[in-house]
Amino acid sequence: MTGAAGDVQASRVVFETAPDRYRHWRVALDGPVAVLTMDVTEDGGLRGGYELKLNSYDLGVDIELYDAVQRLRFEHPEVRAVVITSAKDKVFSAGANIRMLAAAEHAWKVNFCKFTNETRNGIEDATACSGQTYIAAVNGTASGGGYELALACEHILLIDDRSATVSLPELPLLGVLPGTGGLTRVTDKRHVRRDLADYFSTRPEGLGGSKAVAWRLVDEAVPRSAWGETVAARAAEFAARSSRPVGATGIELAPLSKTRSDETVTYGHVSARLDHGRGVAEITISGPSQRPPADAAGIREQAAGFWPLAMTRELDDLVLDLRTNEGELGTWILRTEGDPALVLDYDRLLLASQGDWLVNEIIQYLKRTLKRLDVTSRSLLALVEPGSCFAGSLLELALAADRSYMLAGVFEDEDPGADPAVIAVGEMNLGPLPMGNGLTRLQTRFAGDPDALAAAEKHARQLLQAEDAERAGLVTFAPDDIDWAEEVRLAVEERSSFSPDALTGMEANYRFAGPETMETKIFGRLTAWQNWIFNRPNASGPDGALRRYGTGRRADFDRKRV
Amino acid sequence: MTGAAGDVQASRVVFETAPDRYRHWRVALDGPVAVLTMDVTEDGGLRGGYELKLNSYDLGVDIELYDAVQRLRFEHPEVRAVVITSAKDKVFSAGANIRMLAAAEHAWKVNFCKFTNETRNGIEDATACSGQTYIAAVNGTASGGGYELALACEHILLIDDRSATVSLPELPLLGVLPGTGGLTRVTDKRHVRRDLADYFSTRPEGLGGSKAVAWRLVDEAVPRSAWGETVAARAAEFAARSSRPVGATGIELAPLSKTRSDETVTYGHVSARLDHGRGVAEITISGPSQRPPADAAGIREQAAGFWPLAMTRELDDLVLDLRTNEGELGTWILRTEGDPALVLDYDRLLLASQGDWLVNEIIQYLKRTLKRLDVTSRSLLALVEPGSCFAGSLLELALAADRSYMLAGVFEDEDPGADPAVIAVGEMNLGPLPMGNGLTRLQTRFAGDPDALAAAEKHARQLLQAEDAERAGLVTFAPDDIDWAEEVRLAVEERSSFSPDALTGMEANYRFAGPETMETKIFGRLTAWQNWIFNRPNASGPDGALRRYGTGRRADFDRKRV
Repeated sequence: MTGAAGDVQASRVVFETAPDRYRHWRVALDGPVAVLTMDVTEDGGLRGGYELKLNSYDLGVDIELYDAVQRLRFEHPEVRAVVITSAKDKVFSAGANIRMLAAAEHAWKVNFCKFTNETRNGIEDATACSGQTYIAAVNGTASGGGYELALACEHILLIDDRSATVSLPELPLLGVLPGTGGLTRVTDKRHVRRDLADYFSTRPEGLGGSKAVAWRLVDEAVPRSAWGETVAARAAEFAARSSRPVGATGIELAPLSKTRSDETVTYGHVSARLDHGRGVAEITISGPSQRPPADAAGIREQAAGFWPLAMTRELDDLVLDLRTNEGELGTWILRTEGDPALVLDYDRLLLASQGDWLVNEIIQYLKRTLKRLDVTSRSLLALVEPGSCFAGSLLELALAADRSYMLAGVFEDEDPGADPAVIAVGEMNLGPLPMGNGLTRLQTRFAGDPDALAAAEKHARQLLQAEDAERAGLVTFAPDDIDWAEEVRLAVEERSSFSPDALTGMEANYRFAGPETMETKIFGRLTAWQNWIFNRPNASGPDGALRRYGTGRRADFDRKRV
Repeated sequence: MTGAAGDVQASRVVFETAPDRYRHWRVALDGPVAVLTMDVTEDGGLRGGYELKLNSYDLGVDIELYDAVQRLRFEHPEVRAVVITSAKDKVFSAGANIRMLAAAEHAWKVNFCKFTNETRNGIEDATACSGQTYIAAVNGTASGGGYELALACEHILLIDDRSATVSLPELPLLGVLPGTGGLTRVTDKRHVRRDLADYFSTRPEGLGGSKAVAWRLVDEAVPRSAWGETVAARAAEFAARSSRPVGATGIELAPLSKTRSDETVTYGHVSARLDHGRGVAEITISGPSQRPPADAAGIREQAAGFWPLAMTRELDDLVLDLRTNEGELGTWILRTEGDPALVLDYDRLLLASQGDWLVNEIIQYLKRTLKRLDVTSRSLLALVEPGSCFAGSLLELALAADRSYMLAGVFEDEDPGADPAVIAVGEMNLGPLPMGNGLTRLQTRFAGDPDALAAAEKHARQLLQAEDAERAGLVTFAPDDIDWAEEVRLAVEERSSFSPDALTGMEANYRFAGPETMETKIFGRLTAWQNWIFNRPNASGPDGALRRYGTGRRADFDRKRV
């Protein structure tokens, strides 16, 4: 199974894949409509010890889904509606594989849920921002994560055959939550009344037919006789409303050039040094090395080689790799190198060509990748040094960081003649790359301080040296050469000495100041509760519900409410 | 120590107390300004095994604070500003007692945090809704929960003596979060920039003086020489802005008449039957037995005996009692009995007299008590039967419930001639009793379904029988006599069979559909993460930070990030 999605090489999970290697999904293209058919290979689990029956899934299945969603956006501009359906008889999807969950260690469960959540958010993002509307053609029972996948779609058709239902059986059967956005989407997206949602989520057999429609759990229940026709009609209707261009040609998401060892990860524009002794990953993102093309046509020509896209793909892959495979690297140091003016030039080109479908995809992808960073349970420290290019879209990295340190002046011993580091706010920081809470990172940073926000925005396109950047509140600290090494060393060492759990909790709170959205509620409220439940003996203990599932023995609960 | 706040009688925590029994707080009244002085008795812990040094607190200390805040609102209408300060030298408060936390079982920790959060929310509510503005006069170091108490105040003065600081040392010293709203209030209330907040929360020694002001951690740093005068001046300024009436007389919050056994809790208008076998508390709230007085003067005359106030005080005490002392009663059944028209009459009187300070206090108190129900980790089922009075303010109980069952028709065997049950929406459901998310329970229920909301609101003051109530979406199910007993029994038994943890998580998600506020973020995002951290070996295991604190040995962390 070399090269299959999520293949574990040297026990590392690999996130890069391609359609010709899919084992669990089929992609069928028919003009404006794509059909993603889930057909999970039972013995194709990413790890041993469980069978992926009934279209249940593990991380490997979801890695393929993520890849498919990404490729539809970039490689198939002609696609305007995407139907997700199942190849199994009477079953849409049984959700996350329970034996996999029961056997998995806590960190694996949590990371798995995070990625699946991000993939489902990505499906909604494609619907909202790409003109590719996802439709769930639920042609058999959809339980748990199976229904949650449908919930991520804009429109849910359920086959009305007296047996197919949708359900969230996690609570009654497994003693955990529907953790892939289910609870949040049921009330906040589909507006199911909370008491009906409560009943629904305690009923393992679920609901189907007209009742599922009346309760808003699905949009329509369709008899088998009219199924194919109705799904096709709905897909055509959504496709007709799309803003996707006619006659455009996609670009290929060519394989990443990646070198991976225990100590380093290297791509074309992104690299990381993994320091297991200190528990640190030192990540460097290189800015563009040449001037941008003149226009959208030039971008299409460069295709996957166009710097913003290439860099984003590499960063995305690195984040996923480190999150999954390097749990003990608790601190990520973010550096950039290159010409800030060039970064701003690329940003300007992107924003001037936003109407172009490909440019839009690139911006949206960068947005999603930065969001991935926001919900990453690692401490993020940005170091702004001479030769760096934290400007515009790359300034977002510093704004996403928990703290940033910017050198005032230069390293006198190393390179006394260097230009001092500068940062620059650009148009890209003022709207196109919102966080999950719907605000820009600048707005979140200056939440409740409109004067500081206005001042920072007024600096747009100015190259700010450390003192000015600190004064504007754009960096946390601006030590000079004398203090730099000691201050940064202390910050990193200190971070590594703290409780990893407490850091995760603190960062999850501080990174999302201000309003909440469905997305932040999924990662904050829902995920935090699920993590707590996963960690409790009632779920994961030897007598807990997750472990006991399928043994014929009921879980032994500590009945005390907490 | 008989009768001290939080006294454990028959190992039950008692929440009722009164100033003459306080062991940890002093209340000084001086016209429009009250001073609450924290002076914790070291050997006055609610449980054994720890000393409450340095104004650290346990549940007993907070029960007194809660009582003091309540009494100031009802008994002292002349008070317009409340100064919280410390009687200890150089110490304001060291926060929650760490040995207490380290020794406490998980459920106790979580319940303790919930109550302290509610008390601090109550302080903010007094400032926002009662014209009693809280001012923290931080006359010594305020660490952790000590600083969080200050954060709940509208204005924070910190003594500037080169030693006093404010700090959140939980993360670096204890491996847990500042869990009493600290993280949320720092960013969302005080608008401390998130990277500065990050730094601050990793610095056990905290910050003082002008830096604490510059970072917005406190409002002013005041030299010792000007301390008393400045605190008094600030109190006078806030008092001058208050809307509190001049010349009003308070009412006494007379002792509750409460009888408590293992099986029953009985008050004047509220009672509960505790069924430990089924894990159920059956709670009945009685409506008023006589017509309301004519006006606010009549209300003042009835004082603490006025039905809405008496009922609210009893319900508040019952919720606290059951939450703390009856962890295994996982399901609360809510019933009412009385005349719905009379409840609506009382509501009408309250709303017609809202401008009266006492009436305002009663409405605000009911609001807070219902909010307490919303964040209670017990399954709430409302049963609407003949003879009940779920109308207006009491309808909120059914709307707060996870589900409601309303009998269609009557119990043919028991009382065939009874009037069928009715419910009624009243003005009290349309605004004055918002949930923590800022919406009414009706708005939350019909979030995203404006037509259903408008229809429900249009029913205001109509007495609806079961079929109409179900059609309007105001109750979950409306079984008839034939199905009632079985359906209710199944619902209750089923609830008791589920994982208590998963139920807590599900309810915490479903109860707060729609937008989030600082308050819901504290109970959702912050608390859920804290509960997770509390439950992890890195905090509470034998080698965890909470257990190791003070031993001179550092915690042994599993360094894997989750």
